[in-house]
Amino acid sequence: MESKPYTLYYSPGTASLCVHWMLIDADLPFNAIPVDFTTGAQHADTYRRLNPTGRVPTLIIDGEARGESTALLMLLAERHPDRGLMPAMDASTRPLWLQTMIYLANTVLPAMRDWFYADQDGPAAGAAAVRDLARRRIEGAWDLLDARLAGSAGSHGASLTTAAAKYLVGDTLTTADFMAVMLMRWARDMPRPATSWPHLAPYVDHLTALPSFQEVCRREGLVHWPPSKDR
Amino acid sequence: MESKPYTLYYSPGTASLCVHWMLIDADLPFNAIPVDFTTGAQHADTYRRLNPTGRVPTLIIDGEARGESTALLMLLAERHPDRGLMPAMDASTRPLWLQTMIYLANTVLPAMRDWFYADQDGPAAGAAAVRDLARRRIEGAWDLLDARLAGSAGSHGASLTTAAAKYLVGDTLTTADFMAVMLMRWARDMPRPATSWPHLAPYVDHLTALPSFQEVCRREGLVHWPPSKDR
Repeated sequence: MESKPYTLYYSPGTASLCVHWMLIDADLPFNAIPVDFTTGAQHADTYRRLNPTGRVPTLIIDGEARGESTALLMLLAERHPDRGLMPAMDASTRPLWLQTMIYLANTVLPAMRDWFYADQDGPAAGAAAVRDLARRRIEGAWDLLDARLAGSAGSHGASLTTAAAKYLVGDTLTTADFMAVMLMRWARDMPRPATSWPHLAPYVDHLTALPSFQEVCRREGLVHWPPSKDR
Repeated sequence: MESKPYTLYYSPGTASLCVHWMLIDADLPFNAIPVDFTTGAQHADTYRRLNPTGRVPTLIIDGEARGESTALLMLLAERHPDRGLMPAMDASTRPLWLQTMIYLANTVLPAMRDWFYADQDGPAAGAAAVRDLARRRIEGAWDLLDARLAGSAGSHGASLTTAAAKYLVGDTLTTADFMAVMLMRWARDMPRPATSWPHLAPYVDHLTALPSFQEVCRREGLVHWPPSKDR
């Protein structure tokens, strides 16, 4: 389905990053329009008409404005099956892919929102408690993903040294990786960054070395991450 | 794909409800195994091996244990396209369906978890703040869904009286309805139950009148809901 170009409304480094990354990685035609959070443009009527939640990303698909980064990744993967960014419907990795997308969407993403916006979304007095719970959940998610990457690596059994699995689902890049790396990047200044987990560090190193990641960072003007490597 | 029966691990009225409801509604072969939360069976090693998060539902699909209710609804819909419980890949309602599934999964579901489990998931001292924010988010979601159902009804323009749309996506029952009604049921004892929104009340009335909903309530031993109607 190679229709007219997509239009992405984005703000650098936010939830739009994973969709922006995917559009570049999959070499899909699109226009990118920045939404200036410093002037509150995401709350302006013109933007709210496109996205009533006042969040990014919004992606214009066939003339209709669509939101929710997780849904957009899945939708783009479905519309461009030749890009191979999700397992096919009958692939053995399909259930794990769906489970992983939903886990990132319903556990890590909302906890990140709490971590960063507790005092905006709710009363400032309660923000510390909300952030404390968010941190537990985020670190719990890194535990779980780290164990999965370790387990996957082990089951390949190709070498005596334990190498972390390169991707979250199967042996190829999927939308789950775009989303996971974005979330791990958000955690870079938390008390325990994701890259301090033994199997998440090499995973992040590998994925952030992709030319498409470096290109999206260049276009969004993002600072170098992860800090462990010189590239 | 009519393979061997599914096995559903569930606990009455919890996040397994939407999957249990779908299995019944779609007339799929399955065995249901209760997980006794009163004895903490969800934390037992035998269950944790199936589902490391210690949550329900778990669904055994082709011998593999799978979790995340939202993912399971989507997976079952994909595996049984003849049941028509999701829009086809090329349907015009496909983006709205994906967006709605993800919105329920990443906004309403986690807020519900906070509302009910704030003092279990985090320190008791912060629970009130967490629940306060959760309530705002849940009520914001009912606002948004109510407006959508109202808008859909209006755009049909079939009558002068405004009737709420019957389904969240398009003109037929989808997995989004199983999930939304489950979430609205959870809110039944909140300060403002979902059924106090003008377009959500008739939506809930219509969907809870389905024989499949009444059957899943009978099997799980759930109390009569919504209270507004005698059935």
